[in-house]
Amino acid sequence: MTATYQELRRSDLPSLRREIRAGHYAKHTAGLGPGFLQTNLAIMPEAFALDFMRFCQRNPKPCPLVGVSDTGNPMMVTLGADIDIRTDVPAYNIYENGKLTGSREDITDIWTDDLVAFALGCSFTFERALEEAGIPQWHIDHDTTVPMFRSNIETVPAGPFSGKTVVSLRFIAPERLDEVIAISRRFPLAHGAPLHWGDPEKIGITDLGAPEWGDPCEIEEDKIPVFWACGVTPQVAIERAGIPLCITHKPGHMLITDIAEDAEVPVRNPRAA
Amino acid sequence: MTATYQELRRSDLPSLRREIRAGHYAKHTAGLGPGFLQTNLAIMPEAFALDFMRFCQRNPKPCPLVGVSDTGNPMMVTLGADIDIRTDVPAYNIYENGKLTGSREDITDIWTDDLVAFALGCSFTFERALEEAGIPQWHIDHDTTVPMFRSNIETVPAGPFSGKTVVSLRFIAPERLDEVIAISRRFPLAHGAPLHWGDPEKIGITDLGAPEWGDPCEIEEDKIPVFWACGVTPQVAIERAGIPLCITHKPGHMLITDIAEDAEVPVRNPRAA
Repeated sequence: MTATYQELRRSDLPSLRREIRAGHYAKHTAGLGPGFLQTNLAIMPEAFALDFMRFCQRNPKPCPLVGVSDTGNPMMVTLGADIDIRTDVPAYNIYENGKLTGSREDITDIWTDDLVAFALGCSFTFERALEEAGIPQWHIDHDTTVPMFRSNIETVPAGPFSGKTVVSLRFIAPERLDEVIAISRRFPLAHGAPLHWGDPEKIGITDLGAPEWGDPCEIEEDKIPVFWACGVTPQVAIERAGIPLCITHKPGHMLITDIAEDAEVPVRNPRAA
Repeated sequence: MTATYQELRRSDLPSLRREIRAGHYAKHTAGLGPGFLQTNLAIMPEAFALDFMRFCQRNPKPCPLVGVSDTGNPMMVTLGADIDIRTDVPAYNIYENGKLTGSREDITDIWTDDLVAFALGCSFTFERALEEAGIPQWHIDHDTTVPMFRSNIETVPAGPFSGKTVVSLRFIAPERLDEVIAISRRFPLAHGAPLHWGDPEKIGITDLGAPEWGDPCEIEEDKIPVFWACGVTPQVAIERAGIPLCITHKPGHMLITDIAEDAEVPVRNPRAA
């Protein structure tokens, strides 16, 4: 019983999670669960968790931390009443010693007592806000993945985690730039204000037509290239660190939480529920 | 050569830090280094650091994390070019097994290689913003410490850290309440918007005249009692946890950082300096 994207777009949050948990849906989550925070995912052994958490704290724009599991506990209790991180993401990537070694739709059989799961805010949140403000985004209008580039902006290292900041690109009309900056700054848990706009070479990007991740977009000459910190940054840092095991979401296949996208604080108190 | 508060009010940041580091000033820091972020402090063995960091992530309003040291490194490299956490806070409290066992002005001789220092945002930041907006605060006008109470609002626990949320009280004129909420919400790293306003009993406070910490303030009958999450919350959680060693700032004696109070992100990149 596979569920289609169109069916799930009409689903409420519990049904949506049930379908994903049951393995009936393993595709991207853009546009699903509107109004609720979606997140990137990184799961790793506790031995690396403090350094990774420091890395997130030091690089909050690419790595906005919105939830952390207890060690060994797969329930993300602060992000929802019933979120099991082993089953509730549509698809996972497995990294061993920094190399992608496989993808799967369920990680129950490889979950262990020493793992810690980190949920990081993603760009869907501010993209939705830009859409609502009537600001067109080429990659959404053309149903492609946003183009992403490795910039020359160094992250602040922590333990084994370091590397350049990855940025995503959207072309914005000059007369709407201030508004776009103000809107995205309102979402510090979704990468916040852009890191840079204008000349791409200033942040080490030489060819806007050749993104390292995602799809190329049209180069809109009458608009300004605007670059946001991107959630691929921690993934690159994790690969560079070469830690023995890390499990991430498969790009675009996010965790959908119970947290409202405009919540002041992305935390549900499990004691208050 | 003891420096006076009045002398230091006119000092620039490097001079200020030099005086504190040299042990020439060991008093409160309110009003010093205007425009720069001041922080609360908690230093503990690495064995408890991941749980404490999870506690901060889960309780961002009372525990807004703005900086974390590397294990064993006393330099707070993300908060300033030359901040030595062993000497650059005017006065420290020492807790052993959850009990306050002493105060000192320098912790160089008890610093060890397994300690991690956490800097947490404090209310000075939004208080300054309220002042600038012309909103009177009784405790500032009367040079007393803000009254603080133990509420019945549970924190979200992490490992050994748990307990009720401590709140600070300010009376606000009804016609300025919306503005006060909006202003303080702009400072998520300084406790953000109030947790509660109006009837104190709703959050378990029965006598506004008898704060558990700080000084009583005048009960201004024509105004509304407004309660903000308070940085004493992590201190209470640390005491309850009874961890073998924790070093905090002495209340009011904060760390003054190089970070601008209105920075989008409270992080200096040591590699970019």
